[in-house]
This record gives sequence, structure tokens and C-alpha cells, in this order.
Amino acid sequence: MIDFSNIKIVLVNTSHPGNIGAAARAMKNMSLSRLVLVQPEEFPSGVAVGRAASAVDILEHATVVDSLQEAIADCALVIGASARSRSIPWPMLSPRESGAKIVEESTRHPVALVFGREDSGLLNEELQLCHYHVQIPANENYSSLNLAAAVMVLSYEIFQAATELPEAPDKSLEAGWDQELSSAEQVEHFYDHLERVLVRVDFHDPDNPRQLMQRLRRLYGRIRIDVMEMNILRGILTHIEKNLISDKASED
Amino acid sequence: MIDFSNIKIVLVNTSHPGNIGAAARAMKNMSLSRLVLVQPEEFPSGVAVGRAASAVDILEHATVVDSLQEAIADCALVIGASARSRSIPWPMLSPRESGAKIVEESTRHPVALVFGREDSGLLNEELQLCHYHVQIPANENYSSLNLAAAVMVLSYEIFQAATELPEAPDKSLEAGWDQELSSAEQVEHFYDHLERVLVRVDFHDPDNPRQLMQRLRRLYGRIRIDVMEMNILRGILTHIEKNLISDKASED
Repeated sequence: MIDFSNIKIVLVNTSHPGNIGAAARAMKNMSLSRLVLVQPEEFPSGVAVGRAASAVDILEHATVVDSLQEAIADCALVIGASARSRSIPWPMLSPRESGAKIVEESTRHPVALVFGREDSGLLNEELQLCHYHVQIPANENYSSLNLAAAVMVLSYEIFQAATELPEAPDKSLEAGWDQELSSAEQVEHFYDHLERVLVRVDFHDPDNPRQLMQRLRRLYGRIRIDVMEMNILRGILTHIEKNLISDKASED
Repeated sequence: MIDFSNIKIVLVNTSHPGNIGAAARAMKNMSLSRLVLVQPEEFPSGVAVGRAASAVDILEHATVVDSLQEAIADCALVIGASARSRSIPWPMLSPRESGAKIVEESTRHPVALVFGREDSGLLNEELQLCHYHVQIPANENYSSLNLAAAVMVLSYEIFQAATELPEAPDKSLEAGWDQELSSAEQVEHFYDHLERVLVRVDFHDPDNPRQLMQRLRRLYGRIRIDVMEMNILRGILTHIEKNLISDKASED
């Protein structure tokens, strides 16, 4: 369903091969597959392979090029990750906006998401090759994310955008639950049963109820008790009744 | 402005110290500071320090404990990161919902976000200590994120929630509640007490537990029991015990 073959992740001048491997893993986790490396310091690399875990295929298919221009040549949308604000303001996107824009445009043409060097990011002339800059909001006292961490966050937002938009999934608690929910009537029978037990163990005096049943209704009413849970609760009450000192008969 | 001092990141049984360091860096990038390590395999560690970069202070102030129970004892909200769906479905949050919930509740009480082992995640009994599970949507063919990458994504969503919704009306169940919520430790005492009673009334056989306590944990875990309700439930159990046929002594 998800086709991210038009989306390139471009890493410029990466120093640490471990970051290339970790970026590949993050990409594959988020269904991205096209990695382009601009003059990596060390590649191929066993360290990269180790950190890639089961994403070695991404490393194997990575393209290595000499310049950012070459990496983005066929792309109609180029977004550059930038940690700092620059002297010249540039059109900025949040990570979420970036994810949505990349997903949307990738249905029509190749797009690139570009990450700079570990220590110094993208150069000004590289940033100017981008249509937009994207900045990950962060602690103003320590805003420098690890390269692979930044790839993770922005890839996550791409995947989110692709999976969130088309058909809002049913996120309610009950969707995908393993049991049917109890009916209101079943729940009322439970309260009746519970109250009888509470009277028998001298915890509850119907003539001086305080707010006990009200508080218990508020408590159990906050969850949607499923039918198996209801059977358990009723079974517990029945077993308690059987084991009470003076076994006054008690029916439902 | 941002005060995340009530938010704990808990890492359980981490194998690779590099992941602890990278998690610390991700945390600090997102203004989180409280790291709790449950039986890390190797800590303190030079590898962790290297990967933490300028977040060494987080490692220095990390707490090391022996059990998840200890790590979350003072927390009234516990969310566990879970890559897999379990035999019994549990209330689930998306990363975004998780971020919003953590930020909102952290203004009132300590909260914990719990991450499991690199290879096997959290055990079922650890997952059952959580009110919610959070799953990072991912490639169904390769959904296993690196530990630090998962910490990055969920920390990012916490920071996003804090900066995006500065003063959104607090619509949660707990906001404006008349009582404080019970701590994880209080809830554990309740489960212990409940289990003793269930054994005494022959409803529960610890040697053949089926999934009983698990289902009861899921049931009561959905409620977020407040302290007055907890007193009521404990009082009910005590009164039941006093009225059972053979009153074997049973203390908490």
C-alpha cells in the first residue's frame, strides 16, 4: 500500500559510519528504502552494517555520489534538515508538515530529504539548494540531535503522514478488543450483586449509604467492562458469598 | 517554562550501554532529565558517556534500581513501549496521544515511560504494570526500532505536546477530579490483597492461574483508581476477610 520509492534520504559528508547504519535502520523501520550518500568518510563499513541490524539491504542498495547537486538532480522537492536558524530566513516546515508534504508530493515526483554533517550540518550553499528547511523543535540549551536520531524523527513523521491521512483508523479502546462489552443490564446486575455482598460483610448499610454505591458506580463506570471480565467479577462475588460465615441465601 | 521533572524515562535491563548514552542524549534534546535504569547490564560505562555527547549530566544523575516496581512506585501514570500486540489486548496510545497524556498528567503527579530490552522488549508481567501501551507505527516487515530511536520518537512527541498545546483546555478524566490518583505501589498492594482473598474463596489457584490476575490487572488498570476509591476497595476486601468461614489470619 505504502509506496515510498520516490523518497530519497540524502546524507551529506557523514563522518561516523555507525550513523549511516543507524539511519538505514530508522529508514527501514519507517518503510523508506532509498539512501543516497554524498561523499561519506567511510563507506562501505562493518560498523555501519552492525548498526543497521536487519536493514543491511538499505546499505547494499545505497547510492554514493560526489555532490548534493547530483543526489537531488531528479527531485522536484528538496527539504533540508537544519538545526540552526540562518542569516537569511528560509521557508520553514515543522517535522509534521515536512512529513505531510513529502508524502503528498512523492505520489507525483521524486523528493529528497537532506541531512548534513554530524558537527556542522549543511553548508549555506547546500541549504540554498533546498525548497524548504525543516527544524526539529528541541531544548534550546541542547538542540543538537544525533544524525540518526534526526533521520528517525523525520522518517517517523513521513510514515505517520502516510498512515494517518488516508482513512482514520478506529483508535477507540474497543476496536480490536478481544471481547464484547457488557450490556447496561449486565452491569446493573453486577451492582446489585456487589451491593448484596457489601451488606453481608457489614461494609455497607443501605440505611446510611454515604456515597458508597455512587462511588463504586463511578469507579466501574469509567471502564467499559467486557463480558469475560463481567463473568470474572460475578464469579468472584459468588465465591465470596459461598465462603461467608453465615450463608444467608442470596439470589440474583 | 517547560518543567518535565515529573517525567521519568525508565529503561529495563538494557544490554548495550551505547543505547543508554544515546537515549540520554535524545532525552536532553527534548528537555527530559530523569533517567531510571532497571538492572542495566553495564553501567556506568565509557561507551554510554561517548554516545551521550553533551548529555553526560543525565547519565550522572541516573537512578539505578532492581525492579520495575521500584522504578514506578511513586507514579500514577505508567506507559509501556510495546512493539508487539499481546495475547490480551491492552489500552493503546499512539505516540502522539502518549506525548499529550504524559505532558498533561505530569503537571499533577509523577509519570513513567517504560522501555524494555533491546531484543525482547518488556515481559508480559512488566507490561501489565502499565496503564497504557504505546506502539510506534512502523513497517510491518521490520517494526523493531533501536532502543534509543524509540526513546527519541516518544521523547520528541512529549516535547511536541508541551510546545504545541501550551494551554489547551485540560479535558482529561483526571483533571478536576476530586481525589488524587493512587500510586503504582498502592495499586500493587491492592492486587496482592485481592489475590489473597480470591485464593481464600477458592476462586483463584496460583498453581493454575489461567489469566485471572492478568485480566483483573487489565480491568482495574483501565480505571486509574483514586485514593478514596482505593480505600473503599481495600476496606471491602478487609471486611470480606473478616466474614469468611475459616478466618485464617491474613495481613497486608
